[in-house]
Amino acid sequence: MVVSEDLRKAMKETKERFCSKVVGEGKFEEIDHVYTVDARILPPGAPLMRGREAIKQFWQTGIAALGIKGARLTTLELEMAGDTAVEIGEAELHLGENGTAIAKYIVHWKRVDDQWLWDKDIWNMN
Amino acid sequence: MVVSEDLRKAMKETKERFCSKVVGEGKFEEIDHVYTVDARILPPGAPLMRGREAIKQFWQTGIAALGIKGARLTTLELEMAGDTAVEIGEAELHLGENGTAIAKYIVHWKRVDDQWLWDKDIWNMN
Repeated sequence: MVVSEDLRKAMKETKERFCSKVVGEGKFEEIDHVYTVDARILPPGAPLMRGREAIKQFWQTGIAALGIKGARLTTLELEMAGDTAVEIGEAELHLGENGTAIAKYIVHWKRVDDQWLWDKDIWNMN
Repeated sequence: MVVSEDLRKAMKETKERFCSKVVGEGKFEEIDHVYTVDARILPPGAPLMRGREAIKQFWQTGIAALGIKGARLTTLELEMAGDTAVEIGEAELHLGENGTAIAKYIVHWKRVDDQWLWDKDIWNMN
């Protein structure tokens, strides 16, 4: 399926916001512009969590605990269906002295107003 | 979003086929009626794998290695978009003497002819 350049651009913005603002600068309020209001995350080793407050808390704690200094998200596949899209991707997590960890993920995107946001987010390590 | 009874029934059949035929009876050829031809699985601790042959091999090896005797899949959320659907679910894995393990997953379903099959499948442990 053809994915429009506009969609790719909007998605790139959301991903960069997460990587640079949330992970890089610790601005967890930016999660409001990354995840939908009712988003669900399914992290390894923890139960499903729902909503921006829970997600902020998860990333704030997790980024500190794991020592994540930076992240890069690479789209491997992207399929649109109406105002939603399913992405398979790879996350490169920069752990400072501890090197780099690679995770893979599936994100279910939704268009909300003019933004494309993460509604469901699950990942695991390779 | 309203999900039709027909869809629920077709999905239930696919899930039961996986649990009873593939996991329960070791009939790995039944994978052909569970996953799409080009399906991708994203298992924890392993790279992404693609296609029915790779998926058969993965499950055959994995079910034996982990000692999985049975499985139950419970849908927690289901959203349709055209001929696709995104499911969040919980998998109960029966490990014989080793008790039960709980995994959570996201499956991207696709309608292929009259069947609803798994096109993308990712999971992790709680």
